[in-house]
Amino acid sequence: MMREAIFLIRTADRKGLLAQITGFFYSRQLNVLECRQYSDMLDNTYFMRIAVELGESTTKRELEKEFSGLAEKLELKYSVGYNDDERNVAVLVTRESHCLYDLLMHSEEGTLGGKVVLVIGNHPELETVAARFNKPYFCLPVEKGREREQEQQVLELLKLHRIDLVVLARYMRILSPEFIAAYPDRIINIHHAFLPAFQGGNPYRRAWERGVKMIGATAHYATGDLDEGPIIEQDVERITHEDDPDDLRDLGRDIERRVLTRAVRCHLERRIIISGRRTVVFGK
Amino acid sequence: MMREAIFLIRTADRKGLLAQITGFFYSRQLNVLECRQYSDMLDNTYFMRIAVELGESTTKRELEKEFSGLAEKLELKYSVGYNDDERNVAVLVTRESHCLYDLLMHSEEGTLGGKVVLVIGNHPELETVAARFNKPYFCLPVEKGREREQEQQVLELLKLHRIDLVVLARYMRILSPEFIAAYPDRIINIHHAFLPAFQGGNPYRRAWERGVKMIGATAHYATGDLDEGPIIEQDVERITHEDDPDDLRDLGRDIERRVLTRAVRCHLERRIIISGRRTVVFGK
Amino acid sequence: MMREAIFLIRTADRKGLLAQITGFFYSRQLNVLECRQYSDMLDNTYFMRIAVELGESTTKRELEKEFSGLAEKLELKYSVGYNDDERNVAVLVTRESHCLYDLLMHSEEGTLGGKVVLVIGNHPELETVAARFNKPYFCLPVEKGREREQEQQVLELLKLHRIDLVVLARYMRILSPEFIAAYPDRIINIHHAFLPAFQGGNPYRRAWERGVKMIGATAHYATGDLDEGPIIEQDVERITHEDDPDDLRDLGRDIERRVLTRAVRCHLERRIIISGRRTVVFGK
Amino acid sequence: MMREAIFLIRTADRKGLLAQITGFFYSRQLNVLECRQYSDMLDNTYFMRIAVELGESTTKRELEKEFSGLAEKLELKYSVGYNDDERNVAVLVTRESHCLYDLLMHSEEGTLGGKVVLVIGNHPELETVAARFNKPYFCLPVEKGREREQEQQVLELLKLHRIDLVVLARYMRILSPEFIAAYPDRIINIHHAFLPAFQGGNPYRRAWERGVKMIGATAHYATGDLDEGPIIEQDVERITHEDDPDDLRDLGRDIERRVLTRAVRCHLERRIIISGRRTVVFGK
Repeated sequence: MMREAIFLIRTADRKGLLAQITGFFYSRQLNVLECRQYSDMLDNTYFMRIAVELGESTTKRELEKEFSGLAEKLELKYSVGYNDDERNVAVLVTRESHCLYDLLMHSEEGTLGGKVVLVIGNHPELETVAARFNKPYFCLPVEKGREREQEQQVLELLKLHRIDLVVLARYMRILSPEFIAAYPDRIINIHHAFLPAFQGGNPYRRAWERGVKMIGATAHYATGDLDEGPIIEQDVERITHEDDPDDLRDLGRDIERRVLTRAVRCHLERRIIISGRRTVVFGK
Repeated sequence: MMREAIFLIRTADRKGLLAQITGFFYSRQLNVLECRQYSDMLDNTYFMRIAVELGESTTKRELEKEFSGLAEKLELKYSVGYNDDERNVAVLVTRESHCLYDLLMHSEEGTLGGKVVLVIGNHPELETVAARFNKPYFCLPVEKGREREQEQQVLELLKLHRIDLVVLARYMRILSPEFIAAYPDRIINIHHAFLPAFQGGNPYRRAWERGVKMIGATAHYATGDLDEGPIIEQDVERITHEDDPDDLRDLGRDIERRVLTRAVRCHLERRIIISGRRTVVFGK
Repeated sequence: MMREAIFLIRTADRKGLLAQITGFFYSRQLNVLECRQYSDMLDNTYFMRIAVELGESTTKRELEKEFSGLAEKLELKYSVGYNDDERNVAVLVTRESHCLYDLLMHSEEGTLGGKVVLVIGNHPELETVAARFNKPYFCLPVEKGREREQEQQVLELLKLHRIDLVVLARYMRILSPEFIAAYPDRIINIHHAFLPAFQGGNPYRRAWERGVKMIGATAHYATGDLDEGPIIEQDVERITHEDDPDDLRDLGRDIERRVLTRAVRCHLERRIIISGRRTVVFGK
Repeated sequence: MMREAIFLIRTADRKGLLAQITGFFYSRQLNVLECRQYSDMLDNTYFMRIAVELGESTTKRELEKEFSGLAEKLELKYSVGYNDDERNVAVLVTRESHCLYDLLMHSEEGTLGGKVVLVIGNHPELETVAARFNKPYFCLPVEKGREREQEQQVLELLKLHRIDLVVLARYMRILSPEFIAAYPDRIINIHHAFLPAFQGGNPYRRAWERGVKMIGATAHYATGDLDEGPIIEQDVERITHEDDPDDLRDLGRDIERRVLTRAVRCHLERRIIISGRRTVVFGK
């Protein structure tokens, strides 16, 4: 497999950034495999994703050291990763199995961009699903008044399993700001509605009552504000008056599962830069 | 052309309605061309659209008289129309031409289910568009404090032209409850967002700020509550972070125009029954 | 759970069928839950799906006996099934796991309309997938010149497990006419292209070479003519020039899996009547 | 309005192209507004679209002269255009009005990327449509045995009106190789099917007979091989068994019109590079 380094870059927009950054790699004889950029003219910010081939003679350490010099000079905020990094994913669940199944299946098929290594539930129901795929399942119920204790236990498990990304796969708990701060921009939630429509509870019921003609799902980064985090991916399906709230829930499951899996894959493939309440998602 | 009568029926759900209603037509040797029904189990209401072929020997008057007997017996609320009815459409506009063009084009091609016979604007800009299609255009600007007078003038024009359906094709005025009451369930509005998301003004700007990954449009019956009327049709398109608010407006135009035209066609083809805040839309 | 009988009916189109058939159920005080009909005016055929509630006092046997009288009188071809029937599904596979996973997952969640009870592969690779879901897996490799023997073994397994529906989930073998005749209208195949485009082998490679802007998948009943059977369901996704043949294969997997699962569900819910090379699929 | 130069570039793929090309503009203090590239690893070709802001001090002539030096050095094939170029479009039609209407409407609204300046029909029917928009209409019927004469007349009109792009908007004639050679890569056709399915005549009828569940349309560059040219854009809509061939034609019109308009816009915005039988279409 070709070794590949991926830089996600953000800086104030100005002339010459593309020439200077690509010039840096060219002068080191590094082949640029993909380069996508975006200039947000509305707030004058420049975003770039650049993937370069790491030749035999270049070490990650050297590359990072030299790039940090360029970054300092050009005042770039950036992160760097490699296509051979292991990315560990934890999935948090309650009782609904569909998103968990989809993530496990893609993890198993090698099409998720990382591996699910840990499943945590606040109910015991989905242990059997995790077990089918030989994944450790920890059941950590939430007792009234002891919510923080449970969160602490979750955080310890995440740390122990060196988790890179936390996926809330229909996890029916609101996380504390402290929890979210422990994994900044690394918690992805699925909301079962086309946000910002039907924020909060019972979206399928409310969609039915409002008589919408399409339903949707939204994957977004979790932030302190419930359902207000930066959106990564959305999709919809057409419905008719014949679909009752239970039908919407069933139809919605297939939307939720594919929206969440796509969002997780985009994140793990390092295609996303967060920009305030918005995300820049560089397509293939 | 085959003469066709279309009944839209609504009643309390119970056993035998389908057999009794279709039996009525069968006993009169009338051929059922299409029959669609829907039982809303959540509020126990039955809806039906039934289209029957009017043979040579049956007059509309006889049919209506006899059916009214059945309707009384079964306590049906219903309306009846015919495929050779002329349906007159008025389009109300402000400055945006795209929806008006689409309605005029389909009217001209005979694919709207009725004819646009009147265009009313509160600004002069779109007179040229109406003129291209040889449609009368009335410019009725709204002066501060004289809003009701203008509405009266509009209502008189609608009456004079025997208008069956009023289409608000990006008409940037809020209609008074009196106006709406004059055309109950016969005013269709296009909102340039996927309702209930982004109700109110500047939806494309707000969609951009929120960072959604799809934008949409919604055609609905106008009611006293702005953007709260029963939804007829919705559609969406995928966008990316690269699309700025102006791009969204441009992309949105194509969504608005097709959503509005489809909704108008459904109405004119007598495919819609309103049920509270929801619509039953019988597909072909 | 409400007991429900579902009739799929086909006959020459003529006046009064709807009235007579619904009258039959009404006179027996049986509640019609759903009724969908379709008149194919091009070849004068009438199709109906009617679902009725079986009251306490009506046995399946009585109902079937009485209905057969009506069917004889009206010359109806029909089949009848019940919502409490157990429907057994066998899945035939080769090496690709994605469709198998999706079918097993939906079977497990109770959203398939039946149960996967048997998995047969001509290669050993997918045994582990079946094992995760505790399903029997039979590996029956095909040896050159002994193809019929293998088919015989498959047929025996299908019989032994009382299989109602055979699903070819990327099974890379062509079945003999004898095999197909043993399960008429009960074998569903997934083709990884938008038929009739790219019939035959290597559709993703050929789609890439042709430069199409969308790829698709097609679920159809298997017939003697490869990829020519009646189509049940299709779907597509947008692609770009950046997607190479491997990307198409990866993207295609998600389309294949959802198209196949939907088709299987439609069949098991008794929503399909085959009409020559076409299918009548009654939506909900 | 900001003056903008757009280069479409094609060359053998190799290291450093991005750095060298962007370096060229940077060294001249020209701001890069958009830059999209694509490396086709399967045939080792590099494609780029780069848009740069032309400052006050740079003339088009100087820029072109200097860039030609770079292009020679790097062996780039390229074209250059400007956002203030006038692009003249001719539309060729027969009897169907829907695509013509859509092109005229977008031309009028300023959302086509160019202006329709000429409509040519081989039948008289659509003269009224052109007249609505004050466009010259030339009716050039095709007489048996005098096909080449008619083509010559068309070519003369195209030349006279300085046409940049010829759009075949349901023009029911096959063009000669000589005609196509006169406008290489500048003739766009709409085919009313999802190519390569249903090449040739009567695609809606054949789609109905085959029982497909979606219909589509395809815009492509015209080449000597009918319906075989490089595809620019495709789209589809879901249909059901209830849609007969006439319904498909009506539904199809809305797909054809939007697919053709999008393809024309992409071409006029200089977003397309042809690569053999495929197109590279750089999105926004």
